[in-house]
Amino acid sequence: MEQLTVIKIGGNIIDDNTRLESFLEKFAAVEGKKILVHGGGKIATSIGDKLGIESKYNSGRRITDKETLDLVTMVYGGLVNKRVVAVLQGLSCNAVGLTGADGNVMLADRREVKEVDYGYVGDIRQTGINILLLQSLLNNELTPVMAPLTHDGQGSLLNTNADTIAQEIAKAMAKVMQVNLIYCFEKKGLLRDIANEDSVIEQINEATFGQLKADEVITDGMIPKVENALAAIRSNVSRVIIGHAEDLQALIAGTAGTQIQ
Amino acid sequence: MEQLTVIKIGGNIIDDNTRLESFLEKFAAVEGKKILVHGGGKIATSIGDKLGIESKYNSGRRITDKETLDLVTMVYGGLVNKRVVAVLQGLSCNAVGLTGADGNVMLADRREVKEVDYGYVGDIRQTGINILLLQSLLNNELTPVMAPLTHDGQGSLLNTNADTIAQEIAKAMAKVMQVNLIYCFEKKGLLRDIANEDSVIEQINEATFGQLKADEVITDGMIPKVENALAAIRSNVSRVIIGHAEDLQALIAGTAGTQIQ
Repeated sequence: MEQLTVIKIGGNIIDDNTRLESFLEKFAAVEGKKILVHGGGKIATSIGDKLGIESKYNSGRRITDKETLDLVTMVYGGLVNKRVVAVLQGLSCNAVGLTGADGNVMLADRREVKEVDYGYVGDIRQTGINILLLQSLLNNELTPVMAPLTHDGQGSLLNTNADTIAQEIAKAMAKVMQVNLIYCFEKKGLLRDIANEDSVIEQINEATFGQLKADEVITDGMIPKVENALAAIRSNVSRVIIGHAEDLQALIAGTAGTQIQ
Repeated sequence: MEQLTVIKIGGNIIDDNTRLESFLEKFAAVEGKKILVHGGGKIATSIGDKLGIESKYNSGRRITDKETLDLVTMVYGGLVNKRVVAVLQGLSCNAVGLTGADGNVMLADRREVKEVDYGYVGDIRQTGINILLLQSLLNNELTPVMAPLTHDGQGSLLNTNADTIAQEIAKAMAKVMQVNLIYCFEKKGLLRDIANEDSVIEQINEATFGQLKADEVITDGMIPKVENALAAIRSNVSRVIIGHAEDLQALIAGTAGTQIQ
């Protein structure tokens, strides 16, 4: 099967123009078929503040009401996505930016209201990734750049976590291609000691993950990231690596970052 | 040759959600291959005001400085374009939203600085419309929805007038398809008497346009609109019609609006 590299770039890099451009140069140089998934970054919060749109949270998770949905549509789907696409075009990478609504590429269900109403938040449907469209774009030498927005098929966009989007795309595409999934962020990988960038955990699997959680080495926001990565591996994604955006080439080569097995 | 309908929807309709949704229902029902080009609307100005981005003009034309470019990228490329795409998806129209950077679909040159520096404003290059990509999308049953943004191929988006984009796309696609171009706005066509919606000029050509300008029947913003339409006819676009968004079906049928010949 043909190879595909799915690369997710996190919000902290998105917020920093110099680091973003440096990353995009490395991304443009990645050989073969590839898909970029980008997060949102803090810029939505700072623009929201200026527009008088209050950021609302419940137990640390953002509530997406109607005006917040408009905000993230502008910022993630417009400002961030189109800037990234334009920069990649300048680097001779034929990028095409997509939200889930574009070509019905990511179909989601609005999250059910239980104790909390998260608002316009989407969970991607089991067959919600439009494999045929992504294949067709890739075969036309295009590089899809995915914003963290899905749609419900009934006229509304939905806010969706970028790590989850990367995982769902990697899983779906693994049915037709040999997929490597690379999560890029601002650390060299999962660290044994958060203060020490040289303490990268080289490999992790279900068993060692359980132990590292029990020992409180892996905590907070890193837990869903690893869970996402393990879910991808269980669904036939060939390799999942977590590491620093600056090390993209080494992450792909398997000589840096944390490998999930 | 296969038929293509290129439809441009203006800013006044974009700004009014009820009229926009009514128009999109009619657009979704248009048979055959089609492309939608949308303007920006006043929402960019109102969001810009809240963000403290001053709208700057020279002789009535907007100056697009760096922060204005970011603003229109957010609003035209994100909020407006993605909302339109999501609504069309809800109406079973398989829309895909594009700026000029996406798939390098509209390549432009930044306007030369003469007396005035218009900033990040783009004039589409002579071979700047990516005919092959648009054909490929149309053949995959997708409906392109074009935002009024082009790119320079060197990493920057550029602000570009939506009427001009519609004309350039129609002209380029006329090389490979039989193209009808419909300009939709909030009047029933070009009017002999601006106060009387029943005074629609049914047909216009180069000669009658000259006379109508001389008589000051056609003035101001309508002049470049008609010039755009005449340029399209000279470049083998089959039919150009200007009329009310509410009359879309009748415009396509040729039973309403002003026909440019």
